[in-house]
Amino acid sequence: MDKTHELEIVGKGVPQIYGIEKATGSAKYTVNVELPGMLYLRFLRSPHAHAKIVRIDTSRAEKLPGVKGILTFKDIPQVKFNPNTRFNFFGALPNDMYILSEKARYVGDHIAAVAAVSEEVAEEAVTLIDVEYEVLPAVFEPEEALKPGAPKLHGEESNVLQQISLSHGDIEKGLKEADFVFEDEYKTQIFHQATLEPHVCIADYALEGNLEIISSTQVPFQVRHVVAKVLNLPINKVRVIKPHVGGGFGGKDEVFDEIIAALMSKKTGRPVKAEMTREEDFIATTTRHGFVVSLKVGVKKDGTLMALQVKSVQNAGAYCTSSPRVLGAQSARTLLRYRIPNYKFDGYSVYTNLVPGGGFRGYGGPQINFPLESLMDIIAEKLGIDRVEIRLKNCIRQGDLNITTKNPIESCGLREGLEKCVEKMDWYGKKSKVTSDGRRRGLGLAIDAHITSSFPRGAESSEAIVIVNEDGTINLKVGSSDIGTSSDTVMCQIAAEVLGLTVDDVSIAAGDTRNTGWDVGAYASKTTYLAGNAVKRAAAAAKEKIIQETAKILAIAPEKLECKNKNIFSKDDPAKNITLPDLIQKILASGEPFQITGTGSFSAKSNAPNYSVHCVEVLVDPETGKIEIPRYVAAVDAGTIMNSVALEGQVEGSVHMGLGYALTEELLFDKSGKMLNSSFVDYKILPAAETPRVETIIIPSYEPTGPFGAKGAGEGSLVPALAAVANAVYDATGVRIKELPITFEKLYTAMRKK
Amino acid sequence: MDKTHELEIVGKGVPQIYGIEKATGSAKYTVNVELPGMLYLRFLRSPHAHAKIVRIDTSRAEKLPGVKGILTFKDIPQVKFNPNTRFNFFGALPNDMYILSEKARYVGDHIAAVAAVSEEVAEEAVTLIDVEYEVLPAVFEPEEALKPGAPKLHGEESNVLQQISLSHGDIEKGLKEADFVFEDEYKTQIFHQATLEPHVCIADYALEGNLEIISSTQVPFQVRHVVAKVLNLPINKVRVIKPHVGGGFGGKDEVFDEIIAALMSKKTGRPVKAEMTREEDFIATTTRHGFVVSLKVGVKKDGTLMALQVKSVQNAGAYCTSSPRVLGAQSARTLLRYRIPNYKFDGYSVYTNLVPGGGFRGYGGPQINFPLESLMDIIAEKLGIDRVEIRLKNCIRQGDLNITTKNPIESCGLREGLEKCVEKMDWYGKKSKVTSDGRRRGLGLAIDAHITSSFPRGAESSEAIVIVNEDGTINLKVGSSDIGTSSDTVMCQIAAEVLGLTVDDVSIAAGDTRNTGWDVGAYASKTTYLAGNAVKRAAAAAKEKIIQETAKILAIAPEKLECKNKNIFSKDDPAKNITLPDLIQKILASGEPFQITGTGSFSAKSNAPNYSVHCVEVLVDPETGKIEIPRYVAAVDAGTIMNSVALEGQVEGSVHMGLGYALTEELLFDKSGKMLNSSFVDYKILPAAETPRVETIIIPSYEPTGPFGAKGAGEGSLVPALAAVANAVYDATGVRIKELPITFEKLYTAMRKK
Repeated sequence: MDKTHELEIVGKGVPQIYGIEKATGSAKYTVNVELPGMLYLRFLRSPHAHAKIVRIDTSRAEKLPGVKGILTFKDIPQVKFNPNTRFNFFGALPNDMYILSEKARYVGDHIAAVAAVSEEVAEEAVTLIDVEYEVLPAVFEPEEALKPGAPKLHGEESNVLQQISLSHGDIEKGLKEADFVFEDEYKTQIFHQATLEPHVCIADYALEGNLEIISSTQVPFQVRHVVAKVLNLPINKVRVIKPHVGGGFGGKDEVFDEIIAALMSKKTGRPVKAEMTREEDFIATTTRHGFVVSLKVGVKKDGTLMALQVKSVQNAGAYCTSSPRVLGAQSARTLLRYRIPNYKFDGYSVYTNLVPGGGFRGYGGPQINFPLESLMDIIAEKLGIDRVEIRLKNCIRQGDLNITTKNPIESCGLREGLEKCVEKMDWYGKKSKVTSDGRRRGLGLAIDAHITSSFPRGAESSEAIVIVNEDGTINLKVGSSDIGTSSDTVMCQIAAEVLGLTVDDVSIAAGDTRNTGWDVGAYASKTTYLAGNAVKRAAAAAKEKIIQETAKILAIAPEKLECKNKNIFSKDDPAKNITLPDLIQKILASGEPFQITGTGSFSAKSNAPNYSVHCVEVLVDPETGKIEIPRYVAAVDAGTIMNSVALEGQVEGSVHMGLGYALTEELLFDKSGKMLNSSFVDYKILPAAETPRVETIIIPSYEPTGPFGAKGAGEGSLVPALAAVANAVYDATGVRIKELPITFEKLYTAMRKK
Repeated sequence: MDKTHELEIVGKGVPQIYGIEKATGSAKYTVNVELPGMLYLRFLRSPHAHAKIVRIDTSRAEKLPGVKGILTFKDIPQVKFNPNTRFNFFGALPNDMYILSEKARYVGDHIAAVAAVSEEVAEEAVTLIDVEYEVLPAVFEPEEALKPGAPKLHGEESNVLQQISLSHGDIEKGLKEADFVFEDEYKTQIFHQATLEPHVCIADYALEGNLEIISSTQVPFQVRHVVAKVLNLPINKVRVIKPHVGGGFGGKDEVFDEIIAALMSKKTGRPVKAEMTREEDFIATTTRHGFVVSLKVGVKKDGTLMALQVKSVQNAGAYCTSSPRVLGAQSARTLLRYRIPNYKFDGYSVYTNLVPGGGFRGYGGPQINFPLESLMDIIAEKLGIDRVEIRLKNCIRQGDLNITTKNPIESCGLREGLEKCVEKMDWYGKKSKVTSDGRRRGLGLAIDAHITSSFPRGAESSEAIVIVNEDGTINLKVGSSDIGTSSDTVMCQIAAEVLGLTVDDVSIAAGDTRNTGWDVGAYASKTTYLAGNAVKRAAAAAKEKIIQETAKILAIAPEKLECKNKNIFSKDDPAKNITLPDLIQKILASGEPFQITGTGSFSAKSNAPNYSVHCVEVLVDPETGKIEIPRYVAAVDAGTIMNSVALEGQVEGSVHMGLGYALTEELLFDKSGKMLNSSFVDYKILPAAETPRVETIIIPSYEPTGPFGAKGAGEGSLVPALAAVANAVYDATGVRIKELPITFEKLYTAMRKK
């Protein structure tokens, strides 16, 4: 099945296999799971950004009827761990988190856990725990945290969690050889994944040594690994089940309350559910890291990029989680988008007394894309070069070196994306810069390259099994995690395509670590790429057996046979055929009956960059700073499209999130580190009414390493939105905002200042 | 791993892996499953043994608050099916059962089903259904049913459900060449499997086209097949889950209320639970078939068997279920035990208006063993030959032809079993025939051969998958069904043995058709043999990969490597080694990471007969007929013993059931076909206090086709108990009982008559 093979199932807008149950409300999420005898977990959380527990007294809480267990740091071994430990990644992350600690490092940090027969009782018990804190000085901004006398979060060492450098070529030489050097600094805000479903998990440790966890997670096998490691259990004794998940976006990419719930279940002998309130989900999970990024760019007169020097400072918050990985991912990202002969990146991940940053769609990409794509516009203007041309001149092309993998880039639709996007937007058209009602019109543009899988930073691998039932239908088992992206549907499409079946013929069992081989989890835009390839191989293995057995029965050479419509036939003479159910009956009636199964394993040997080009038109009201977005064009090169409906969902959702990033979303903290807008009333996700219809352009592309030519598509379409909007706002108003979000107020103030 | 390999895990008395949860009561059976919104199903059952519904009115029942759905034959397509249809068997069974019919064929037959919010409401609603029956003449005994004018159960055809013949050699010639011909007739009773857990299932058809069934079944894949077939669903849309099962013994070897529960779930949109009461479990499931067996045996003066002619009449009850298969299994059974050069079997399965017979531990074996083993004693006495000698002379030996498979018998411990059993019982010792308190002492003996798998009557196959976790522990997936026999434990032992791990290192996921390859189910004493071989192969495939990867890393030839204690080492120099977790880390760190998995498929090409020899001592009180059993010796050739504790459990349980068969258990019906003892108060299972301690002798044996040399052990030890007891009673009293059970009253009456 090569590039020229005509696809029957893959690429079609097959409805999500869970569509009906999700639409009718019968789909089961973790929050819907109620187990007999289940207890409910609530936490006492620190009101201080930095404090030591001097005295903690749970005796009043223990006496409350219905309370079944209370845990504080005194009850728990003080083992440090990292909730983002991946079993497949090279290089360990620092372990700096305790299950429960005697020190709080941010407002919301866990102090004590109560399990009770109802949430209400647990909640009341929490209020009955008496704590005396020694409040410690706190620090919230990396630049403050880096100062010599700053309060230290973890021991006496510096607050630098990790320093990451990357260089390529000779930065000094590059800057010297440039005709012009531009310098600039940009700041991006802390905000939240704001999944519709808050974090929730259930742990059932009813039997000593066997632990079952139900969790709203993106990474069931990672949860299994971390929980087993921290609780010192063998992997086979831990089972993690992932029901439907109401959104992840990187925010469910690690272990949260699974460990404490497990310990509480062990203590009480009952299943324990830990379901976060919306407020807790905001204040005590992980956020998008705030960054300050300084750039120094050397260019030739003609706009050719000669050198890029980056200093990136990441606000990691109070614990490590995945911060160094986000920074590491950021370090090389630009080199997948632009040809830059001389490059130097110095990144600093810095502890502060805020809720930790963590995984978030784009994973460090937006925070470097926004600065550079803004600066590209500034450079173009300064050099008198067209904004499109400067990008066409410098952008990566097929065959260029992928600096992260040291292999050539095998597919790249950046140029075509730029051309088509600009054409669709009528970029060079002569629309008036001012509307009839006095608003200023502007166009903006930005491009991005995003990785498909974390290769080579980890052993990115996935396993699949295809089991052929006696009527020729399929049970497909794969470790991948559908967190709402339709990836399970895509897996069914792939198996159906290979085996000549319909999607309805395939049932998938995923999301249960006991029942499938591993998959590293739903992150890095790679489920289709990784698990899709594993499924394709598993289905191909099953198909090979089907063909082999048919060849024996029909006495036709295997290479002359094909499968379609549950039928195996001679390509030369389709009348020579046998249906799949009949074939299975013949196998059963043979002397050596067996079930046709196929296994498939795939590990990434590329990160197959996927590309996005965004063009946006904005209208700015000069009286209020209000930004309206009448048009948004998003071109995407995701290789072969597996499911057009699912792809459009990813692009539209990403753009929406990117626009929120650009315009409205930000977590605000008071001077004591307390979050000010931890509710959907106060935290402003971009409303549907303010979100433009996204005009998606699919760039024809074929990634040879992907299943049927596919690449990732889950994150990249978020990234260019920030700069595209900022560039369009500048185009409209002449005001350049370098600190996100571009709130109406901020823009109004800047316009006034100007 | 051959015969001489020293076994580390297999053969040990490893405790059942579910031991703690079963002992503490936390193990989940189907009866414990409660789903949100679940409805409860109750049935209106026929009070008549044979009747036609003239009018049925559910309107009063429908009005009862809490009633959510009522189904009668009018609501259901009148499609005939057989609940025992196996997807892997050759030759279809007659379809004669309706989901709900307008005709009742036995007392207890389903007339209408009610689903309500509670069992109480459903129960009350049942009483509000008005039915007018046309009562039809009924027939209960096969000999009556065979008479020309007898009432017909299914259409106008004869009540002969099926006639089965088997012959071998020349029966006429054999009888002619015999010195003596003996004729005799024996009758065995109808009785019940009486599992501790009654039949129960839950069907959840919440989403059109996806049906989930939780069932207390021995055969999940068969349930899936039959339900899909009858409801016209693709196999991949039906999922059958088997939680812990509280005993099967053949009684859960087919579909019961799963189909009607599914239809009710479809109608109501809610999960539906159908849990039988103890009474329903007696009156409306399946029973042990009653048989009348007539024998004609030709022998030489020296006791050599020359010919055996059998006429076997089976009381099938009202529907076919598995009756012809039970009769077919019986037809050849004797030829696996004795060398009989000339043989003829004529069997008649006959419909009557009683609850149907079905699968039951021994599957037709006891009903032919009791007659022939009784007659062997009669012949021995008549010819003046020792009872042991006549069996030693005639019994099957290794290398003899297995008449059912046409291959030689590869292992046979019958002779050794006879010798050891007799020795242990001190058979030739001079114990007084009368005790000091006047009771008569007697010794009895019987032998049996039972099949391991139904080969060649079906494609007996099983599939297994071994998945190696990142810490070297194992997730094992196999389709086999542990119904309380410890077979899951045995599967873990096999995987651990092959891979050099402990049982604790292996977790098994079984009992869910969505998550494993198929296994044909827990019947025919073959789970260890079939699934065990599949697991062994899957583990061996995983081991091969482990060895291959180690060979690369350590630069040692694969054949020089061995796995033990989670360590792979050079057999020549054990210091050259790598631990399994380290190996996996190296694979993850390689350029081509993958998870080590292995798949295994096994199909039986033998039925590897397993053998039993029982010796029993009885004491009979001549004043009351009371039989006491002071000693019971059971020798078993089950090949290599996989788990000594589990084996002893099977032998002891089988003997207990066989003694109940011999002495106490019988379903009684009044003249209208109504069961008289459908409760544990009235139905007499042999009490523990009356059950002897079983002295088990394990005959060393090695079956080359079995995993590590194992054969079946689940049924054979029931079979000889009947004749052994009857023979001992004769030895004690001189009274030969030819109609089971040998109740004290029956024996007393017979002794008085004599």
